[in-house]
Parts: sequence; structure tokens; C-alpha cells
Amino acid sequence: MTDPIDPVDLTAQLVRCASVTPTEGGALLLLEDLLSGAGFDCTRVDRGGVSNLYARWGRKGANRSFGFNGHTDVVPIGNPDDWSVDPFGAVIKDGFLWGRGATDMKSGVAAFAAAACDFVRDTPPDGAVILAITGDEEGDALDGTTALLDWMAQNGEAMTDCLVGEPTSPNHMGEAMKIGRRGSMTAWITFTGEQGHSAYPHRAKNPLPAMARLMDRLASEPLDQGSAHFDASTLAIVTMDTGNPATNVIPASCRGTVNIRFNDHHSGASVTDWLQAHADAVAADTGIAITMKIKVSGESFLTPPGPLSDLIGTAVQAELGVMPELSTSGGTSDARFMKNHCPVVEFGLVGKTMHQVDEKVPVQDIQTLKAIYGRVLRDYFA
Amino acid sequence: MTDPIDPVDLTAQLVRCASVTPTEGGALLLLEDLLSGAGFDCTRVDRGGVSNLYARWGRKGANRSFGFNGHTDVVPIGNPDDWSVDPFGAVIKDGFLWGRGATDMKSGVAAFAAAACDFVRDTPPDGAVILAITGDEEGDALDGTTALLDWMAQNGEAMTDCLVGEPTSPNHMGEAMKIGRRGSMTAWITFTGEQGHSAYPHRAKNPLPAMARLMDRLASEPLDQGSAHFDASTLAIVTMDTGNPATNVIPASCRGTVNIRFNDHHSGASVTDWLQAHADAVAADTGIAITMKIKVSGESFLTPPGPLSDLIGTAVQAELGVMPELSTSGGTSDARFMKNHCPVVEFGLVGKTMHQVDEKVPVQDIQTLKAIYGRVLRDYFA
Repeated sequence: MTDPIDPVDLTAQLVRCASVTPTEGGALLLLEDLLSGAGFDCTRVDRGGVSNLYARWGRKGANRSFGFNGHTDVVPIGNPDDWSVDPFGAVIKDGFLWGRGATDMKSGVAAFAAAACDFVRDTPPDGAVILAITGDEEGDALDGTTALLDWMAQNGEAMTDCLVGEPTSPNHMGEAMKIGRRGSMTAWITFTGEQGHSAYPHRAKNPLPAMARLMDRLASEPLDQGSAHFDASTLAIVTMDTGNPATNVIPASCRGTVNIRFNDHHSGASVTDWLQAHADAVAADTGIAITMKIKVSGESFLTPPGPLSDLIGTAVQAELGVMPELSTSGGTSDARFMKNHCPVVEFGLVGKTMHQVDEKVPVQDIQTLKAIYGRVLRDYFA
Repeated sequence: MTDPIDPVDLTAQLVRCASVTPTEGGALLLLEDLLSGAGFDCTRVDRGGVSNLYARWGRKGANRSFGFNGHTDVVPIGNPDDWSVDPFGAVIKDGFLWGRGATDMKSGVAAFAAAACDFVRDTPPDGAVILAITGDEEGDALDGTTALLDWMAQNGEAMTDCLVGEPTSPNHMGEAMKIGRRGSMTAWITFTGEQGHSAYPHRAKNPLPAMARLMDRLASEPLDQGSAHFDASTLAIVTMDTGNPATNVIPASCRGTVNIRFNDHHSGASVTDWLQAHADAVAADTGIAITMKIKVSGESFLTPPGPLSDLIGTAVQAELGVMPELSTSGGTSDARFMKNHCPVVEFGLVGKTMHQVDEKVPVQDIQTLKAIYGRVLRDYFA
């Protein structure tokens, strides 16, 4: 038995790779070297100018193949003068490791890579351990985890369960795991009437009252009251705009945008139908043409509480003495893609400083996270 | 008896004075020369960089003092290349006199000045004929007719009745006179909440639903059903704006503007109270702060049908064979100031090409208008 891999040192090495999406920055190369050395079959899956890494220890097509998913790309640092440290320096001070990606999510990747290497070396399992690591999670995510999944499908690669290592706890380590996410969609709505003089509204067709009415209705009608594992769906009007500076002119058109986060009572298609019905009703009332452009950025999904969430909850309980709640809150992650492949749960660090200046992670939490991931692997293959 | 004054020639001379507000351009000087020569006492009333002309024939304080009100200033020409003629050339072709101010309202001023000169010379009345001509009607109108009225009050000058020579007919000469105008006001409304992430609307205070609700209510509730001489009051939402490009951000504030034209059921103050009550109700419902900036640009007013409108109707009927309807439609004019002084009615040309490129007036209409004004004077003092 050789020494265990230090996930803090590995996180620091990864932070020093300036892998702002879509730049690989040396991060995947570093992991590929490490994992290859530990006996993983590594494949770089590159698509659309993005690099991704697929690493499998054990036999392809094993009955039990536990997978980890994560990303090495990071969001931009913003103004470097706003940072109190070198954002790619990975300095350790005051018990924290500082730098872009420290929490989101180079520490998560380091923790599962270190745990996986130690595990397959110390207690080689009857099955496969798979790491699917992308360089395109913070960007459009068109050529990241989806590229890995496409490649896996083409090559007969599969996971039986997947743990995504994204930060999941709002304040304290171990507070929450995520067993699903709400869906997210945006509707850009345009209202078109006929210009005129504001002294003679009956000679014009003012689109603004139609916008006011539709937006009032959309904001007033609850989509649902929540479901077993989800909060109520939400709709936020994010903008309404006209750009008419003349108080004596009725404008010909205006536009508004709503962003909707929907639970498992809905799909992007059903919410689209709901929006369209309201728009049609207001168009009929007002004689104003209403058109919508809709983008569904993710459907809602749920991995119902069961063996996978039990496995992770038990490991967290053993290491931290707390049982994480089963959450479905928050924004999107690549779990939205993985859920099409196999049961998926997310568990990782406290997300507080994600995307902020002076992003940092307690070094102790990285060690704890590695311990939890290691226990998950041992329990899974026990 | 000398020859009558040609109002077409006088209009042409006035059009050649480039008197874009607030430039005098020689227009008032030209009229002052003409009127002085005809026996009018002329006074230039200058205030705030604007020139105005007060001209009285006859005794100050006469029991019957018939007044005309008009303006020599014009709106800008816009792009000179858009004109098919020199906008200050006063060319006569195809039966029209062309140029900026041809209808609004150098022809009106020329018609009443010519009519007044002929009248006092041919049939000197027992009373006074007064011309109050401003150079600031198209601008802010702060130092125009109001300056003349202030000066009149200070100097014991008064009219017993007033005819404003603005264009009043939409399509055909003689169609309409105006016996009042609706009031006009604008409210700029600001909605202030708290910014947040659109995935967590409950942690933010979104001002947009409050704007949608208030605007829907304002646009949906009729202010009234009209009155004896007025159409129903109108409210036009003219703009709603936010300027938030991020679909994942709930903005902190937004703003909307409404323009209201109100009849004699209301005043600027009563409409302000109505707006405030609705805003307060929505603010209480939503917890969003709503503030309003209000500008009342004119109160509604009415000169009830009576001797003055009868006088003018009779003259129009005699010259054109049609009885003009008593209208209160349209935007503001300086009648809104004159009505504080004495009964006021407006009658003038067809307003079709006002403020447009290639503004023009049928030369025959100028002659007809002079004839009508002359008949008004003869009948008034008969």
C-alpha cells in the first residue's frame, strides 16, 4: 500500500491550471496522468473546441459501475484587482485554499479522483469505477457532459449509478444532497399593435395594456403548490421594455421576458402550453398580436429517494454525524444530463463563495469530502 | 377706401421670416409695422428671450373689445432635403402656398390681421379690436401668451371675447370650431423593490408584477363615459421599461409612463388623486414602493355654447354654407391660457399638414378665412 493521494495538493495543482471555459488549461491533462498511473483507461473526448476526460477502472460493461461526474472549467475571475490573492495561485492561508474553482469544483474533482485512485489500489472492486469529467459546464454545456454521454453510448460505456460532485450545501458541510432539480425555461414575449397619438388611443392599437394584463396574470396565478420532493414552481418577470421616450406617442410594440423554474408537475412543453393559453386569451381580449420565443434550458428531474441517496446519506452520516436533507432546490448542473443515463445524486461542498471573488474552500472540507467519497465507493462495492 | 389687404401676400411675407421658436425672425416686426400703420397701438411684450406683440385699435377699457390670439413661431423644418420646396420660400404652386407655418399658423395670423385692418379702416367700431400675437406657442409656452396676459393684467388691458386662429378642422374648411379642450397630464411612475436571482423570487422583491398590475388596472378602468361636450377621458400607457438583459436576475426597479387626456369631469388634481389611490392599493398588495412624478400640461376647459360660438358659427355658415360642429377634441393650444381671461373659441384652417414636411395651405382658404374673420368683426360690433 502506497501513501494515499492528498486531495488538497491535487486541488491546488488544479486551481493553478487557468481553465476558464472553454480553455483546458492543463487541468484534464493533469488528471489524465494521475488516473492513467492508477490503472484507469483514459479517453479524451473532444468536441466543439472543448476537451473532456472519460476514465474507467475495471471492465467495460461491468454489472456495477459507479460513476463520478464533475468539471474542471471555471467561470472568469472578473477584475483581478478585486481579488486579495492570485486567483490562480492556490494559496493556502487561514485554513482555506483560495482561488477560482476552489469550491466550484476543482476540490470536488480532486476529492473523487483521489478517493477513486486510493480505492481501486487498496481494495480493487468487482466492477468499474468511472470518472466523467468535463471542461464545459460553466459555458453553454453543449459539448461537455453531453459529449461524454454521446461518446459513451457509441462505445458501449455505461454507469449504473452516478454521483455529481458539485457543491450542494448552503451553509454547513453535509447539510444537503440534491436528488433532483427544477426545470428552467425563459419566454421572450413580443406584443405588437399600431402606433398612434396618445391623445387618440382609439385610433391606435396600444400593445402596452396587453403586456400589463398578460404579465399580471402570469405573475398572479400559482403554477402549483409544490410536490412531494419539490417546492412550488416559480415564475419571475425579469424585464418589460418599450423604449418610447415620447409621452404623446403610443408605441407599436413592446416586449417582456419571464423566467420559470418548474417542478415535476410540469414539463417545458406543458408550461409552454400554459403560457400560450394565457397569451391567446389576452390577444383575443385586446386585439394585440402576441408572439413568444421559448427556450427550455432544462427539464425538471428527480431520482426518487432509494438505494443511491441512502448510500450517500449513510456515508455522510458516518463521516460528519449529520444526515443530509434531500433537496431539489437550486439552479442547473450537469446532473440534468446524467439523469438521462442512470440514477444520479449530487453531493459536495458548501457553495457559498462559488463564482465570487476570493473563492475559497476550507482545506479540512476537501479531506472530509474525499473521505465521504471513499466511503461511498467502499459501501457501494461491499 | 383703399384696397383691402391681401392675406395671401401677408402670409407669404410671414413664411419668409424663419421664426422657429424662440426666434422672432422679423415676423412680429412685420406685423407691428402693418398694424401701426392701420392705427393700432402696438406694444412688444418680451420675456425670457421671447418676443410677443400686443396691438389694440380703439380705447383701452372699451365695453366691447374683440380679441384675436395667434402665434408667429413655427416648429423646426427637420431635414431640409425632405422638403420639395424651400421651407421658408413661400412658393405658390398648384393653388397652394407652401412652407413652414403655412397652416400653423401664419395664414391664420395674416387672415385676422388683414381682416382687422380692413375692418377698422372701413367701418370703425364703437369698441376695441385687439390682437395678441405670441412668438412662443410651439415651445414651452412659458413666456408667450401667458406673458401677454400678465402684461395685460398689469396694464388694465382686457378683451371681452377671444377668437384663437389655430387650425381646427380635420379635413374640410368650416367643419369644426373648438369650444374647449381636454386637459392633459403625464405621470412617470417608478416601482422599486429588491434585486435577486430569478430562481428564488421569494428572496427578492420583484417590482415588475406591481407595474403590470397597476398598469392593467389603470388601462382597464374608464375614467368616465364622456360629458355633454366632451368625449370620454382617455389614458394611454406610453412606455414601460426595465432594461434588464439577464434572464436569471430579478431587477430592483422599473418604470412606466401614462398620458391622460381628461374632460370637464376632472381636474389635474382629481386625476392625480385617482392615480395615487390605485398606486397605493398596488403598493399595499405587493410591498413594492411606487412613486410618481406628475406634470399637468393643461386643465380641461369649456366655453359653453352661447353668443361667441353662435357669432362664429353664423359667420362660417354665411361664407361657406356649413355650420361648424362644436368640438373639444385635439391637443393643447394657447386657448388654455386665454380661457382664464374671457370666453374663448378657436376657429381656423384645415390642420392636415401641420408640423409636416411640405406644409401647405390652399390660397383660397386663406381668403375665405379672412372673409370669415371680417364678418365676425362686423357682426360683433353691429
